[in-house]
Amino acid sequence: MGLDQDTWFTEVYDQEGSAFSLKIRAKLHEETTPYQHIEIYDTEHFGKLMIIDGCTMVSTRDNFLYHEMMSHPALFIHGNAKRVLIIGGGDCGTLREVLKHDSVTEAVQVEIDERVTRLAEKYFPELTSANDDPRARLEFVDGIRWVEECAVGYYDLIIIDSTDPAGPAEGLFGAPFYRSCHRALAEGGMLIQQSESPLYHLDLIEAMHTAMHEVGFDQTKLLCFPQCIYPSGWWSASMARKQGRIELPDNAEPTFETEYYNADILAAAMAEPNFVRRRIGSGGR
Amino acid sequence: MGLDQDTWFTEVYDQEGSAFSLKIRAKLHEETTPYQHIEIYDTEHFGKLMIIDGCTMVSTRDNFLYHEMMSHPALFIHGNAKRVLIIGGGDCGTLREVLKHDSVTEAVQVEIDERVTRLAEKYFPELTSANDDPRARLEFVDGIRWVEECAVGYYDLIIIDSTDPAGPAEGLFGAPFYRSCHRALAEGGMLIQQSESPLYHLDLIEAMHTAMHEVGFDQTKLLCFPQCIYPSGWWSASMARKQGRIELPDNAEPTFETEYYNADILAAAMAEPNFVRRRIGSGGR
Repeated sequence: MGLDQDTWFTEVYDQEGSAFSLKIRAKLHEETTPYQHIEIYDTEHFGKLMIIDGCTMVSTRDNFLYHEMMSHPALFIHGNAKRVLIIGGGDCGTLREVLKHDSVTEAVQVEIDERVTRLAEKYFPELTSANDDPRARLEFVDGIRWVEECAVGYYDLIIIDSTDPAGPAEGLFGAPFYRSCHRALAEGGMLIQQSESPLYHLDLIEAMHTAMHEVGFDQTKLLCFPQCIYPSGWWSASMARKQGRIELPDNAEPTFETEYYNADILAAAMAEPNFVRRRIGSGGR
Repeated sequence: MGLDQDTWFTEVYDQEGSAFSLKIRAKLHEETTPYQHIEIYDTEHFGKLMIIDGCTMVSTRDNFLYHEMMSHPALFIHGNAKRVLIIGGGDCGTLREVLKHDSVTEAVQVEIDERVTRLAEKYFPELTSANDDPRARLEFVDGIRWVEECAVGYYDLIIIDSTDPAGPAEGLFGAPFYRSCHRALAEGGMLIQQSESPLYHLDLIEAMHTAMHEVGFDQTKLLCFPQCIYPSGWWSASMARKQGRIELPDNAEPTFETEYYNADILAAAMAEPNFVRRRIGSGGR
């Protein structure tokens, strides 16, 4: 069955020969920024949909999975993160989740493309609802430079909530950037980065973990979770810790509202499928 | 971007306005059986692909997720299942996994459409590799009748590995069939049935669990796992137990080869996302 291009948005993931489509009612917006091409659609069943450079980024319906898993696991494992840096994350959904934690005194979102945030304010207002929190700070500058220039040992948690490792996000994957992050983190500090699909991108995931160890992180750990609109429908984030273990904490149950996350889900996300375990080692390495 | 119908197979999931496509090299086979329409494709990156009535059923690449999760969790939770009945499951992948358990003395696969198995033998020979096991028995008759007519309390485990609740599989969802299963199960016996997507089909899942309780099952429990080629990329199975609890067993680690399943993955699959917990209750009910 063919899909009518007027009523479906399709993301073709050519390197794995798969594609995912959502039925649309209308294209609400389209623009080319200095960094990327952004489209906003109104879909039939997924609410609003943001596309960047042809790739699905955020839908109203299923973004809770990604945003909760990019924030709560690392915050609960760390246990007392006060200063949090978000690189990318322009839709502000991760920032909103981070600010649900009372330990956090400062959450800086460094997104290179201000237009992503301005469009999120208009089309995904529920994601930007915490932007007025006095602990929140939004910067629209280069995240790589931000991390290079910040004070040594300043942050407790760095969240790399970026697009795929191509285009503006390419420099966020690999040893040079991880070295800057390691320097910017306090003792016991953590890094978490979206790391694509466990089914499709195990080579990339392995390379990321190797590079994280290479620059001095003590332990790394993969988190897996469903994400319907991303290639393969299954997604991951990779965590690394400076001087400390990545272990299930005694207290991982949220006192605030979530749609997906709870303490059992944290343990579930840390479970390694056998084919993953064989490649990146059991219990982190 | 549009998809060329000559080089892509697309399953449109109209009720949720999404579609999933795989790039194909060739259509290898197509036939209409007395029960359904079957197509076999050779894909670019997913190996062979079986389609029934327009819906993706099995791909070489990712069937390990589904088949391992339809078999090992229930077998390890039961702890000593000897007689296993598989309803549907004509590709024989679930049967192969069941036969990896030494406790199993008899595994009967009751598939209504013999052509599914004959095509699996040709195009997915790795899935049918255990069919010669002396404990295996293949029957090509109506599963509903099989369960109605079997001896009371005969089976330790019934696995309902069917297509979606429409067409030939419709009678496998709901209280009348579950009542037959309950009668056919021994004390402590278990039922596991594929139960569609946690993201898309929570109404169906809730109705299934309610019906399972209604006919006398003591406890039900949802298992969640990724399944790339099925709608939303996230899938589930629902378990029910006759006179007994559904709990993580002390011994759930396989002594045989698996690609996805291990004891941690069993615990992970049993973790309930918050939005699921609100609907079907924590820890089963």
